[in-house]
Amino acid sequence: MPAEIRQGEQLDDLQNGYHIIQAEGAFRYGIDAVLLSGFARVKPGERVLDLGTGTGIIPILLSAKTEGRSFTGLEIQEKSADMARRSVAYNHLEDRIQIVTGDIKEAAAVFAPASFDVVVSNPPYMTGKHGLVNPEEAKAIARHEILCTLEDVISQASRVLTAKGRLYMVHRPFRLAEIMRLMMKYQLEPKRMQLVHPYIDREPNIVLLEACKNGRPRITVEKPLIVYEKPGVYTRDVLDYYGDGRDH
Amino acid sequence: MPAEIRQGEQLDDLQNGYHIIQAEGAFRYGIDAVLLSGFARVKPGERVLDLGTGTGIIPILLSAKTEGRSFTGLEIQEKSADMARRSVAYNHLEDRIQIVTGDIKEAAAVFAPASFDVVVSNPPYMTGKHGLVNPEEAKAIARHEILCTLEDVISQASRVLTAKGRLYMVHRPFRLAEIMRLMMKYQLEPKRMQLVHPYIDREPNIVLLEACKNGRPRITVEKPLIVYEKPGVYTRDVLDYYGDGRDH
Repeated sequence: MPAEIRQGEQLDDLQNGYHIIQAEGAFRYGIDAVLLSGFARVKPGERVLDLGTGTGIIPILLSAKTEGRSFTGLEIQEKSADMARRSVAYNHLEDRIQIVTGDIKEAAAVFAPASFDVVVSNPPYMTGKHGLVNPEEAKAIARHEILCTLEDVISQASRVLTAKGRLYMVHRPFRLAEIMRLMMKYQLEPKRMQLVHPYIDREPNIVLLEACKNGRPRITVEKPLIVYEKPGVYTRDVLDYYGDGRDH
Repeated sequence: MPAEIRQGEQLDDLQNGYHIIQAEGAFRYGIDAVLLSGFARVKPGERVLDLGTGTGIIPILLSAKTEGRSFTGLEIQEKSADMARRSVAYNHLEDRIQIVTGDIKEAAAVFAPASFDVVVSNPPYMTGKHGLVNPEEAKAIARHEILCTLEDVISQASRVLTAKGRLYMVHRPFRLAEIMRLMMKYQLEPKRMQLVHPYIDREPNIVLLEACKNGRPRITVEKPLIVYEKPGVYTRDVLDYYGDGRDH
C-alpha cells in the first residue's frame, strides 16, 4: 500500500479514479467542494492554490479534471494536512499536488506574491463564534471564522495572484454583498456567479463566484444550478460536476 | 374627461382600475417597472420617492397596491413629467401622487435630506453612450447614463432616505457587483435580491434589489422569478406582480 491509513480514518472512492483519506466522523468533504471544483476553470499549465484545503479534496478533484501544471493546498491544521499528504501519495499525485502546512493570513509571505494563476477557496462560512460549542475542534475551525476571516482569504488571494489571475470561491448567499465588496476592495472584480438551489422552487443555499484580478466591471450571472430532482436523486448538472470528465 | 390626452398620445388600461397616458411609439413602461412595483414593500403611511419616474408608472402602480401616504415622482424630461401629471389627474390621484420636474443629481437639494421612507428607481441601465444613435431622444435618456449615473442615483437615494429607509431598484444582472459596491459605499446595505429569468432554464436578465440604510450585512437571495411558462404566457408569479392585490 503506497500510503498509510491510520486508525479512525477511512479511504473513500471519489469515483474518478482517485481516493481520499478522511477521518471517520470528523469534518468531511461535502458538495460545496465538489461544486467549486466543477465551477472553477483551470487552463493547461496554470498554477493553482487552494486556501484552506482541509483533506486536499479540491486539489485532487481539480488535478483529475484539468491540465493545470501544479496544485498547492494550504492548510493550518496539521492533522488535516497530514491526511491530505497521505491521500496525494496514495493517488501517486506527488508530482502535481503539494500540501503546505500554514496560515491563510500569511499566504503572501509563505508563497511569493503573484505566484499563482488561480486561487480557489471553500472558506469558513460563519462569522465569529455564533452557535459554537467547542471552538477547538477541527470542524469548528473549518466552518467558523476563528483562525481567519473572509477579508483575510480575499486579501491574501489577491496578493498571491498574477496580474490577470482568477479567484474561485464557494460561500453562502447571505454573505454575497460582503463578498463582492471585499473582492472589489482588493482589485478582484466579480466576473461570473452561479447560485445553487437544493430544489428548483427553493431559495439558493450556495453561491459560486469567479473574480478576475484587475478585471473590468461586468458580471455574468449564470442560470441556477439545481441540486436535486427529488430527495436523494441528483440532477444531471450536479452529476456532471461529480463526473471525472475534462474541463467543459 | 378629467385630463387631456394629446395628439400622438394614447391612454392604456393598467388592469388595476387605473390608466396611464403614454406617447405612441416612444419609450413606454415595460415589465421592469411592473416587477419593481411588485417587489417593493411600502408600509401604511410611508413616503415614497421614485427617482426618474418617466410617465409615472411606478407611483401609480404603488399607490394602487399599497397604503403608502405619499408618492413623489422626480423626472427631468418635462414632456414625460407633463404626461405623468395628466395621468395622475385622470386617475384622481392628486392627493397621493406628486410629479416634480427635476434632476436626480439634485434630489437631496430639491427635497429635504431624510424626507422619504422608501426610494424606488428604474434607472438607465447602459453605461455611457455605447450603441447610441441619437442621445437627444427621450428613449436614450431613459436607457443610457446620459444625464445621470448609477452612482448619482444611489448617492442621492441615500441622502433623501431616513435613517432606516429602504431603496428598491431594478437593474441588469451584469452590473450587480457595481450596484452592490455603490450601495455599500453610501451606507445602503443590500438586504434582499431576486433574479428574474425569462424562462426557467435561461440566464437571468433582470435583478431586483432591496437595500436598507445603515443595515447590518446579511442578504436574502430569494427564489428566482420566472417570467414565461411558454412564449406569450406569463407564469403565475408574474401575473401576481401585475395584479392589483394589496401588498403581500
